[in-house]
Amino acid sequence: MSDPGSRIEDLVALMARLPGLGPRSARRAVLHLIRRRGTLMAPLAQALAEVAAHTRDCSICGNIAEADTCDLCRNPARATGEICVVEDVSDLWAMERGGAFRGRYHVLGGTLSALDAVGPDELGIPRLVARVADEGIREVIVALNATVEGQTTAHYIAEALAPTGVTVTGLAQGVPIGGELDYLDDGTIQAALRARRSLQG
Amino acid sequence: MSDPGSRIEDLVALMARLPGLGPRSARRAVLHLIRRRGTLMAPLAQALAEVAAHTRDCSICGNIAEADTCDLCRNPARATGEICVVEDVSDLWAMERGGAFRGRYHVLGGTLSALDAVGPDELGIPRLVARVADEGIREVIVALNATVEGQTTAHYIAEALAPTGVTVTGLAQGVPIGGELDYLDDGTIQAALRARRSLQG
Ligand SMILES: [Zn+2]
Ligand SMILES: [Zn+2]
Repeated sequence: MSDPGSRIEDLVALMARLPGLGPRSARRAVLHLIRRRGTLMAPLAQALAEVAAHTRDCSICGNIAEADTCDLCRNPARATGEICVVEDVSDLWAMERGGAFRGRYHVLGGTLSALDAVGPDELGIPRLVARVADEGIREVIVALNATVEGQTTAHYIAEALAPTGVTVTGLAQGVPIGGELDYLDDGTIQAALRARRSLQG
Repeated sequence: MSDPGSRIEDLVALMARLPGLGPRSARRAVLHLIRRRGTLMAPLAQALAEVAAHTRDCSICGNIAEADTCDLCRNPARATGEICVVEDVSDLWAMERGGAFRGRYHVLGGTLSALDAVGPDELGIPRLVARVADEGIREVIVALNATVEGQTTAHYIAEALAPTGVTVTGLAQGVPIGGELDYLDDGTIQAALRARRSLQG
């Protein structure tokens, strides 16, 4: 009865669960939407419903897909013999914005963590190893965040891939210590990709 | 074909129109939603569609309503003989959170602005004047932002109400110069309401 109706309160509570929006900014966002109910709120509701209904995880690489496999895995031009391993779909998007990488991806969905019980299976590492032979991969570029967890996971992946004989490289120059890919400018990512170094030996 | 599909791109573009979200944070929010498509994205789509379909402006006070009139205008307990004039629905919400005001509201929806062609009619000031007689109002509390536009509008309202003989007050102590109501803590708003001063003479 007090201020916003319960239907609006429910909406504010849902909006407040978005990253970067607290309770106050969620209220402002909802008010902004209500003022534009025809031009923004209804189209946003529709777009959210459609994406929710039509997205899934690509069964090959873990990217977001609108079918069983994603656009990148279905695109023959991306069969370059290279796979880029990223932690998260947001990192894949950052790599694609950079535009320097033309191969395919493996999205881990996290990093190894004993604490959170995230092991190689949870990250699809056996599936990645299988792809190297199946798809005739020559090089796996491990593009993980320059954090302790990222680098631990990168070394684990390099060891898991060693028996396949594939070249395993990592992004080098340009990624600052502790930096996260998604916050880097596109030029930095391109430079780091060009200067990639071997993780072996 | 590049990174997110066009359906997802469209959603990111809509999300980026929310206050407080730029293109980057909109992408992060969409990714966050896609990861929680069943538990957050679909319910959010539903909540947005419902609010868009069921909200309108209260025909009496300009508050957000789910019927022709809002909860506050329909609640007989709020017929205290007091009307609080606010610039925006977000200010009404801020007043209600404070909990010190028990009367009804008039939401201007802006301030007087020659530049933007916002005159008394656009702010519903004639409707406010009529309410004073119709509803037996004893006091109108003009709770506008402590900005030049807010205070200019407050003085115009006080003059427009002068012929009715109603007491016109304004929030006093506690509202900092240049401050906006929606950013104040609840205690400050309560103190300012208690110490309200006459805008007449
Ligand atoms: Zn894929
Ligand atoms: Zn009302």
